Amino acid sequence: MCFIKGVSILGSTGSIGRQALDVLDGLPDFRIVGLAAGKNIKLLKEQIIRYRPLLVSVEKEDDALELARELAGKGTEILWGSEGLLAVAAHPAAGVVITAVTGTAGLLPTVEAISAGKDIALANKETLVAAGSLVTGLAAQKGVNILPVDSEHSAIWQCLRGSRPGEVESIILTASGGPFRKERDLERVTVSKALAHPNWSMGKKITVDSATLMNKGLEVIEARWLFGLDYDRIRVVVHPQSIIHSMVEFRDGSVLAQLGLPDMKLPIQYALTYPDRLPGNVPRLDPAKMSALTFEPPDIVRFPLLDLAYRVGRRGGTLPAAMNAANEAAVELFLAGRIRFTSIYRVVEEVVGRHDITDRPGLEEILEADRWAREKASVADTR
Amino acid sequence: MCFIKGVSILGSTGSIGRQALDVLDGLPDFRIVGLAAGKNIKLLKEQIIRYRPLLVSVEKEDDALELARELAGKGTEILWGSEGLLAVAAHPAAGVVITAVTGTAGLLPTVEAISAGKDIALANKETLVAAGSLVTGLAAQKGVNILPVDSEHSAIWQCLRGSRPGEVESIILTASGGPFRKERDLERVTVSKALAHPNWSMGKKITVDSATLMNKGLEVIEARWLFGLDYDRIRVVVHPQSIIHSMVEFRDGSVLAQLGLPDMKLPIQYALTYPDRLPGNVPRLDPAKMSALTFEPPDIVRFPLLDLAYRVGRRGGTLPAAMNAANEAAVELFLAGRIRFTSIYRVVEEVVGRHDITDRPGLEEILEADRWAREKASVADTR
Repeated sequence: MCFIKGVSILGSTGSIGRQALDVLDGLPDFRIVGLAAGKNIKLLKEQIIRYRPLLVSVEKEDDALELARELAGKGTEILWGSEGLLAVAAHPAAGVVITAVTGTAGLLPTVEAISAGKDIALANKETLVAAGSLVTGLAAQKGVNILPVDSEHSAIWQCLRGSRPGEVESIILTASGGPFRKERDLERVTVSKALAHPNWSMGKKITVDSATLMNKGLEVIEARWLFGLDYDRIRVVVHPQSIIHSMVEFRDGSVLAQLGLPDMKLPIQYALTYPDRLPGNVPRLDPAKMSALTFEPPDIVRFPLLDLAYRVGRRGGTLPAAMNAANEAAVELFLAGRIRFTSIYRVVEEVVGRHDITDRPGLEEILEADRWAREKASVADTR
Repeated sequence: MCFIKGVSILGSTGSIGRQALDVLDGLPDFRIVGLAAGKNIKLLKEQIIRYRPLLVSVEKEDDALELARELAGKGTEILWGSEGLLAVAAHPAAGVVITAVTGTAGLLPTVEAISAGKDIALANKETLVAAGSLVTGLAAQKGVNILPVDSEHSAIWQCLRGSRPGEVESIILTASGGPFRKERDLERVTVSKALAHPNWSMGKKITVDSATLMNKGLEVIEARWLFGLDYDRIRVVVHPQSIIHSMVEFRDGSVLAQLGLPDMKLPIQYALTYPDRLPGNVPRLDPAKMSALTFEPPDIVRFPLLDLAYRVGRRGGTLPAAMNAANEAAVELFLAGRIRFTSIYRVVEEVVGRHDITDRPGLEEILEADRWAREKASVADTR
């Protein structure tokens, strides 16, 4: 590349946001132009001082005003709230926006960024789960790329490089199986156990989703939209070592897989440098020292959210948005100690069962389904 | 594809030749125009009756005359000897030539086919080992493709699809480790044990080469010429299950691997249909049912031919041709019960040590090195 590319990061103080900044430190020709964060003002301030973005947004007005005072005259404009977030997403100096906020909160800024013609490095899978048809349609219309950052989808994307239309038989998402793959008593699982992922260091919400396999269900729906494949062609296999990040089966029977140590820096970098691969300093996989790689089918009896996600994805309309919102609410209830681990499924399943589906929804209907499901989940009968 | 492509097969009655015909049975738009075989006249006759090639060649004149009598008036010309083999290699109706003869015998017809402008589906690795610089130079000059059929090189080639110049950090050839990976007493290994490969059903010569790891050494040299990489960037890892057929490490740290059940039909088909992938009926890999995939460094103390091949490849000139010929002669001696399994290395190492290297050799010098090494190997001191 021979030009400077502006980057905005939505969710810069989260796990993906911090790693994205690490990656950008090693890449030439990128300039951080916008940062959006929530409440971690201390870290955000360090990031502002280091990267000198043009525009920053935080969740609360008070924090914004405080930051603006402290950083007066440094050339960084400070905004707040959802308007601030949307302004960072659409900043004219950004060519690519890394969407690393958690949950449905990522939907509106992603739509805003696409509408403004930005490429999206998508680390927020909930956006495609809730509004896959709308978001991919808008991206096609605007001619922007949606570049996957999720390690599984990056793996598939890498395996598809150079392939021709019609060649894909199926894609095979690998799942670590989470911390409870061998756990007998899921009813008594604690929050701290659920947050101890065996392979990946991630935010709380995605870590719980990994433990329930809902994360894999969300990824199945994400894959459907990213790669335009029927659900019948999207498979899941449990691979506890998280070395093979996913696979593609071609119609001649050949399978390509992408491997690496579990480190998000690699998919983040590939999304940013695509279609090039630049030298990177992620820890290297030494094939001669790999432990045994094992595979097994997912246990959909003990982890029924994966199967539910397939059914919900196939049904479509506003149902995936409702499922996704119910899951977010249920995970919050679990993290707050208010429901059991196994009740996450019960809550989501109940909300999904009661949802009045709207087909071919617009953004407002998707957001309404999200609000409805969140509300229902928070009062769901979870005895 | 929308045109008929003529195919000639050199070595049609061997393991690769027979599987190539199986593959071609399932592919539209191909026509068998030439077949060359050795002494298996019974099978060759069946192939002629079934595929009606324009030209056939066998090893011996008597067999040719007999076949010509039996098949008179069927429209197939029958030749013999090295002239016949070269005529099949260069037949004007062939667009691609599958070179599946064993050993250095494949060199001259491959050169002939390239000179005549044919694409080469290369199943004869000895050609590139003995004459890699010459053969790849000629192919570049003639603008023809050398399409790898070896499963490892096909795997690498598939992983490289869509990649850009300079992106490859290293290629990682996988090796089953052969039948004697865990054998304690290599001195007492019998011919029948050496011919019982754990994963692949192949010809005798390559099966013994797999048992000594010389096959992997030859593949390292083959890879150097096919992919134009320094030996420092070509690595070998033992993977006893033969499910991952090889890998490519890119400079960002990402690794792509090609997987499949051990079945040569897949790489044969890919070489023939490249750059397309067509539907194939090879047995499918079910990732959820894969056994554990394990990896370990090769044991170059017990299997020193692999290390020798690296040293010989790095030195270059006529030395690889001499090593390859010495190995062929030594394997013949072993198969004839005249030397021990472990003496294969001793013979090859001795011949290599005594070879007077010619740098930048022409075809005649390569063939002379081959003859010299074969002669020396057959009388090598193998106590």
